Amino acid sequence: MSNTVSAPEALAPGTLRVTPVGGLGEVGRNMTVFEFDGKLLIVDCGVLFPEEHQPGVDLILPDFEAIRGRLDDIVGVVLTHGHEDHIGAVPYLLKRKGDIPLIGSQLTLALVEAKLKEHRIKPYSMTVAEGQREQLGPFDLEFVAVNHSIPDALAVAIRTPAGLVLATGDFKMDQLPLDGRLTDLRAFARLGEEGVDLFLVDSTNADVPGFTPLEREIGPVLDQVIGKAPRRVIVASFSSHVHRVQQVIDAAAAHGRRVAFLGRSMVRNMTIAEQLGYLNVPDGVLIDYKKAKDLPDDRVVYMSTGSQGEPMAVLSRMANLDHAIEPGEGDTVILASSLIPGNENAVYRVIDGLTKLGANVVHKANAKVHVSGHAAAGELLYCYNILGPKNVLPVHGEYRHLMANAKLAQDSGIPAENTIIAENGTVIDLKDGVTRVVGQLDLGFVYVDGSSVGEITDADLKDRRILGEEGFISVIVVVDAATGRIVTGPEIHARGFAEDDTVFDSVKPKIAQALTEAAKSGVRDQHALQQVVRRTIGRWVNQSLRRRPMIVPMVIEA
Amino acid sequence: MSNTVSAPEALAPGTLRVTPVGGLGEVGRNMTVFEFDGKLLIVDCGVLFPEEHQPGVDLILPDFEAIRGRLDDIVGVVLTHGHEDHIGAVPYLLKRKGDIPLIGSQLTLALVEAKLKEHRIKPYSMTVAEGQREQLGPFDLEFVAVNHSIPDALAVAIRTPAGLVLATGDFKMDQLPLDGRLTDLRAFARLGEEGVDLFLVDSTNADVPGFTPLEREIGPVLDQVIGKAPRRVIVASFSSHVHRVQQVIDAAAAHGRRVAFLGRSMVRNMTIAEQLGYLNVPDGVLIDYKKAKDLPDDRVVYMSTGSQGEPMAVLSRMANLDHAIEPGEGDTVILASSLIPGNENAVYRVIDGLTKLGANVVHKANAKVHVSGHAAAGELLYCYNILGPKNVLPVHGEYRHLMANAKLAQDSGIPAENTIIAENGTVIDLKDGVTRVVGQLDLGFVYVDGSSVGEITDADLKDRRILGEEGFISVIVVVDAATGRIVTGPEIHARGFAEDDTVFDSVKPKIAQALTEAAKSGVRDQHALQQVVRRTIGRWVNQSLRRRPMIVPMVIEA
Repeated sequence: MSNTVSAPEALAPGTLRVTPVGGLGEVGRNMTVFEFDGKLLIVDCGVLFPEEHQPGVDLILPDFEAIRGRLDDIVGVVLTHGHEDHIGAVPYLLKRKGDIPLIGSQLTLALVEAKLKEHRIKPYSMTVAEGQREQLGPFDLEFVAVNHSIPDALAVAIRTPAGLVLATGDFKMDQLPLDGRLTDLRAFARLGEEGVDLFLVDSTNADVPGFTPLEREIGPVLDQVIGKAPRRVIVASFSSHVHRVQQVIDAAAAHGRRVAFLGRSMVRNMTIAEQLGYLNVPDGVLIDYKKAKDLPDDRVVYMSTGSQGEPMAVLSRMANLDHAIEPGEGDTVILASSLIPGNENAVYRVIDGLTKLGANVVHKANAKVHVSGHAAAGELLYCYNILGPKNVLPVHGEYRHLMANAKLAQDSGIPAENTIIAENGTVIDLKDGVTRVVGQLDLGFVYVDGSSVGEITDADLKDRRILGEEGFISVIVVVDAATGRIVTGPEIHARGFAEDDTVFDSVKPKIAQALTEAAKSGVRDQHALQQVVRRTIGRWVNQSLRRRPMIVPMVIEA
Repeated sequence: MSNTVSAPEALAPGTLRVTPVGGLGEVGRNMTVFEFDGKLLIVDCGVLFPEEHQPGVDLILPDFEAIRGRLDDIVGVVLTHGHEDHIGAVPYLLKRKGDIPLIGSQLTLALVEAKLKEHRIKPYSMTVAEGQREQLGPFDLEFVAVNHSIPDALAVAIRTPAGLVLATGDFKMDQLPLDGRLTDLRAFARLGEEGVDLFLVDSTNADVPGFTPLEREIGPVLDQVIGKAPRRVIVASFSSHVHRVQQVIDAAAAHGRRVAFLGRSMVRNMTIAEQLGYLNVPDGVLIDYKKAKDLPDDRVVYMSTGSQGEPMAVLSRMANLDHAIEPGEGDTVILASSLIPGNENAVYRVIDGLTKLGANVVHKANAKVHVSGHAAAGELLYCYNILGPKNVLPVHGEYRHLMANAKLAQDSGIPAENTIIAENGTVIDLKDGVTRVVGQLDLGFVYVDGSSVGEITDADLKDRRILGEEGFISVIVVVDAATGRIVTGPEIHARGFAEDDTVFDSVKPKIAQALTEAAKSGVRDQHALQQVVRRTIGRWVNQSLRRRPMIVPMVIEA
């Protein structure tokens, strides 16, 4: 299924328009736009991290083309929780219009504000909590507690005269959460009684059978590993996973160890989480990592970033002995984290490096030190049965996840025609309990590279892939403008191609000859001469070396 | 652990020298050299497939530097089985000396010969079978049947006056193999009685607890999926996995479906396997894929390549509708294969593409359609206990796999000082049941790119990574040789960098000015002027765009 681009019809009165802008067909850059009576409400505004076919890209943003010319109509951005794939694009949105209000829970807004501070933006923000109701323009919002791999996550129910919509954000249904804050199924039941017209639901783990294990099952494993560790312990995890860090702190304290945070985002986020009371640290347990070095080895736990093998993060640098803490014989390293697809090689390189240094590396493949943050199929069925929604829009996931989620909805009794498999930019109208796809926007990837946003195109990435696979050969020839006679050159330079440039000695006369012949037959146009050069060397390199580097011919008139 | 390079001492009389050349600290390019009394025996000669930090590389060879100047001393190459990571570098070895004898089982040699034919090489080969003994120079070889994910695999026992060595090649210990050909533990027991001085043992799955499940457990799953499939079935697997293909053929035949092979290597290998009797195809089951299109959809199974998401293989092309067979609604696709780390993104892209076309995709994450070909920890313990080797050299694996295997050896009672963790190029001498590390060769990666072998260096790959991440900017200025005055330029071209070149308008005057100033102060040297250009534009692009493309300044005298 791939929708053809078509402009949506005008929005009819009393109708709610729902447009997923990001997060469908991908894991990341979640963003959905709701429109009613000329006003827009945005739910989440996250980033996507690039894959290997998008080289050199720092971040990928949702395509704000979806709200072009409508910035003044936005009544607010609801942020369901503080993960990058839900908040990371907020600075780029606020750079377009700084006074768009942000609505979210205390921890979510604290994390967003810390991020915005780095961009020198001070936002207009409104803190909300579960159970709270707020009217934003025509949107009557109710916030519902959900459990996820970060505290203080919220689902949002959106009421308009067109009907009731529930968007889960990311969630799971841990029935014994560390903070006692359950996904509020009583609220789900109440909303179900009222009648949910459209349910936007997290699909990330829809193709995982059964139930996500309890976060608290990890505690005893950490306790055992840390308890038996003979020397230093280094734990790597996501820097926003407060409950995972809490369990590390608890295990460390139980065994008389102090904890030092490592990595900028870990220090920043855990400082915020502690200040706001989401992280409980017994007195005297935390220690600055510079002072921790003076402790005996069996009295310290380092809590660090870099669990995905990111080359610049603490754990990779440790594995390369490029960090003040140098792991060695007898140390224990725990990767208490998921392994995001695509990161395997990087993560295993780090694990091998640490093993080589003598460390004992514990990770999810050899111990139960991670559980997912997303509801698996069994949990999603509970949701469908408790809510009994009229229509379902699976969100947050690759196509196979959306399909698996739609199948679960159908298994629970929701008619297939009421489960909507959409793409980013699919425009869905809701009225009287009926949804209709009314258009398809042409949305793309917006690449952030350095300080440039949206300047790198897919054509540039294609060039990068060619350059990165094959390198390039540049040929410079200076010719006399009047006669076409070669003044200097051909000079040939190559990068990423071969050890030295003498390999080109045999092709230079061929190029000179081709250019001379072209000049004799009256060709003077710079572009045409460059094509002569390209063809000559291109054919040579392909036939003699069976390779296809980028060829950059430059014929210059002097 | 990283051994310092040191030339080995001269080989003492009566001593066996063992040098692993490839396959240690990596999964691939397995090759070990044995030396006794001036003669060399090579066991395996495979390739390694590149990772993402080795862009554009086709294959990686073992570093033949280890046998430089010794080609005439080689008495033969024993090939334990027909997988690429054990035979793939043979053509490159034989290009150096065509008459080195190849020794292997019937199927192994048939696969090598088919590969060599593509390189237009006809080898000298000697077919051996389990139980057979052959004398090659000073090496007394005995071949032992082992079970693996390709038929006809052999371990090799090497006897010299220095002692008895056993090298497993790749193996597992399936106790109910499809072809009834067990890993010969009776032979292992007999060798153990005789006394194994050194055991070279496959480490690939040493960190996997327990036992590899039986290959035949997959049959009923395939049978059920194919039996229930409403329309076409497409199965992807490795093109050398004869037993997996056998089970697909059996399930297809049981449900009245015909089987068409797709993909060059699948057709080639299965034709060989059938001709030699390793694959049993009931009469009338095979059909050419061009004719299969005329069959009803529920009467056909396509057996194809591409299970790792390789972009040019059949399955990826099907997912992109770039193949004569176009999957659609109701079709079933089975990936009956492993998912090699690093291929996740590519494989999931193919799965998503097929799902989008309407196919039901069955793979190892949602059904039991794959088992490994390597012995897990439980099986390795059996080996250690039956053999009771004096010394152990774990081979075939990343560092963590070698470490896990050494740990298993030690758990079984082998002293830690007799378990050798080596690197490629570690030189180990064996005499009187005692091993000693006597040197460390300086071996590297030999990259094949197109028709070039060993010309691409790590510096070129670094250039490619920069080019692939950031693109490049080239600046051309033609100057008067005598005065240094700018004749033409600066012309600036960029690729993989930004949408258009007008972004450079503001930096051109800066470059011109910097060059004019340099010329005024008497700088004429081309290299020095290029450095001026590089510094000027480099500083500008870094400060104004926060990026670091490759900068290629070219100052040309005219």
